[in-house]
Amino acid sequence: MKNFDINEDPHRRYNPLINEWVLVSPHRAKRPWQGQNETVSSNTLPEYDTTCYLCPGNVRANGMENPAYENSFVFENDFAALKQEEIAFEENKEESFFKAQPERGISRVVCFSPKHNLTLPEMSLNAIEDIISTWQKEYTDLGGVDYIKHVQIFENKGSVMGCSNPHPHGQIWAQSSLPTEVEKTQNNLKTYFDKHGSNLLLDYLQEELKLKERIVVENDHFVALVPFWAIWPFETMIIGKRHLTKITDFTPAESTAFATILKQLTIKYDNLFETSFPYSSGIHQAPTDGEAHPEWQFHMHFYPPLLRSATVKKFMVGYEMMGESQRDITPEKSAEMLRNLSDVHYKQKA
Amino acid sequence: MKNFDINEDPHRRYNPLINEWVLVSPHRAKRPWQGQNETVSSNTLPEYDTTCYLCPGNVRANGMENPAYENSFVFENDFAALKQEEIAFEENKEESFFKAQPERGISRVVCFSPKHNLTLPEMSLNAIEDIISTWQKEYTDLGGVDYIKHVQIFENKGSVMGCSNPHPHGQIWAQSSLPTEVEKTQNNLKTYFDKHGSNLLLDYLQEELKLKERIVVENDHFVALVPFWAIWPFETMIIGKRHLTKITDFTPAESTAFATILKQLTIKYDNLFETSFPYSSGIHQAPTDGEAHPEWQFHMHFYPPLLRSATVKKFMVGYEMMGESQRDITPEKSAEMLRNLSDVHYKQKA
Ligand SMILES: O=P(O)(O)O[C@H]1O[C@H](CO)[C@@H](O)[C@H](O)[C@H]1O
Ligand SMILES: O=P(O)(O)O[C@H]1O[C@H](CO)[C@@H](O)[C@H](O)[C@H]1O
Repeated sequence: MKNFDINEDPHRRYNPLINEWVLVSPHRAKRPWQGQNETVSSNTLPEYDTTCYLCPGNVRANGMENPAYENSFVFENDFAALKQEEIAFEENKEESFFKAQPERGISRVVCFSPKHNLTLPEMSLNAIEDIISTWQKEYTDLGGVDYIKHVQIFENKGSVMGCSNPHPHGQIWAQSSLPTEVEKTQNNLKTYFDKHGSNLLLDYLQEELKLKERIVVENDHFVALVPFWAIWPFETMIIGKRHLTKITDFTPAESTAFATILKQLTIKYDNLFETSFPYSSGIHQAPTDGEAHPEWQFHMHFYPPLLRSATVKKFMVGYEMMGESQRDITPEKSAEMLRNLSDVHYKQKA
Repeated sequence: MKNFDINEDPHRRYNPLINEWVLVSPHRAKRPWQGQNETVSSNTLPEYDTTCYLCPGNVRANGMENPAYENSFVFENDFAALKQEEIAFEENKEESFFKAQPERGISRVVCFSPKHNLTLPEMSLNAIEDIISTWQKEYTDLGGVDYIKHVQIFENKGSVMGCSNPHPHGQIWAQSSLPTEVEKTQNNLKTYFDKHGSNLLLDYLQEELKLKERIVVENDHFVALVPFWAIWPFETMIIGKRHLTKITDFTPAESTAFATILKQLTIKYDNLFETSFPYSSGIHQAPTDGEAHPEWQFHMHFYPPLLRSATVKKFMVGYEMMGESQRDITPEKSAEMLRNLSDVHYKQKA
């Protein structure tokens, strides 16, 4: 009988953050692709677009005019999924199949730059540091609202990720409950902390730094790696090297180091298929419920959909929805590909 | 303070099958859409396509020729995510961040019809019954293999759902473990069964049949409804009215009734936006691990991506990946829209 070879044989890997498995099929990357191709975003956007509701000076759907902002700029989402209004509600204590509860929250949009055509990999370090301090301010302000228990900072980049405007921007949804994925993560971090008295992600990072198989880029304060249990072909996670429960724990040196690794990682992403690389990214950190949360470690997820080229993505569909996430390339191979890419943006080289 | 109105106010609903929540934003369906549009599949496919590897008589990638099949036709997937080979593996009993195990399995493709351009809603009842008996046979055969613990029957329909060939077909992935989503469902069904001595889905169905708010179509043996906790805009579930742990429990009358409801539901789907409606569907039923599984109830999920039209889909991206699934239209409204649609396929009427 053949011995198990993790680089060759179909296998499952375990994700301790959410207590779920992923099916890995290393041999399957070779199958031919006859399905849908994505359209590549054009590289010829103007620096300012009169029809863009995020550009400085332009008017938004609600009639408000954007200021002539120079760095990042934050406003309330005009089509928020959450509302701030307090709703009277009495919980039904009986067991029921129709369990629902009102949810209060605040949604904001964070423009990353006044320039319509500039994304993170092409921004200056200073400009990225400015975004980080905006995230810190929003985490503090929104987290400080009495009923807000969780502040979700995220970015949808590229039309394939549902982004409806190429102007560089992210969002923040702050709300009165812990969302499902965060609650799952918190439960697993807490169980580990109670058992070991240490932090799951920091302990994991120590082992990854020894093995060096899945590291993409590293500096004094942060590491970007492809998690052992990654589900997306080029999924990565940025983890702080020191115990940081939240973004407001950063020292100034850590803010600079975080800006640096964000720029390096997204440059590598763009260089992979020489395209403006689509992804959804998001920060997971301590909830704002007033507790200490030593079990938490600040980290940022990147979930990019592309698999083989600028136009062929991985579809998480039938089997993945009904059964389990599945991937066709090993995390080690993806990490190696990303690691070996230049730190200089392909547009700069041309 | 305003009283909670589930039809108007942002809220969360609880899914007892997987112990997760969904965020519902009823007011948000009104926001304008400036993002990606999907391409509509052309209606002008030929009945036979010389270049299609699923059409009768044509040659597949591995050099094998398809027979001149007349109903459904099953073959082993030439690019399977799973392999049948047994792999020697010794489990590491120590706690580790690098938990992996080989996975064995069999993947098959089920062609639904020899006709390249025929999908479920346009097939005859007899032809759909033939597919059902193929599914029964495969569940028995694959489930009978000693190491196979779970048989996942599913269909990816439409290029937007990663389907690489419009020829009507589904897939079956049978494997040596219970996939993540199935295991979650089984755990929750089991907890309910142990506590109440009855079946979660049958008890739920009784209440839905009383309320009639989320039923789409119903016959003597099956009900298609939009679950109270649905995440996709037009997500549905078909449930048997009698305790059926698996597809091989069907009486002949139940097979006919299941074919009927499959046809009715998919006709309504096509009629919604007058397009060949994309979705991923899949059957959840008792595992094939040799246990009795009274906690299980046969059901079939439909996860369609479209939201507003034939070209605008719902993106489950940043917030949904990092936080929680989110929907912009209530399940009650979706059920009403589907229920009120004609049972005659729009192409038949023209
Ligand atoms: O097997 P297919 O149709 O080539 O591939 C499709 O379905 C599979 C099972 O859901 C997915 O893993 C693939 O990403 C998708 O493109
Ligand atoms: O808020 P946007 O950018 O209009 O919308 C996008 O991001 C949201 C949050 O992930 C999703 O709910 C939407 O489906 C997506 O299109």
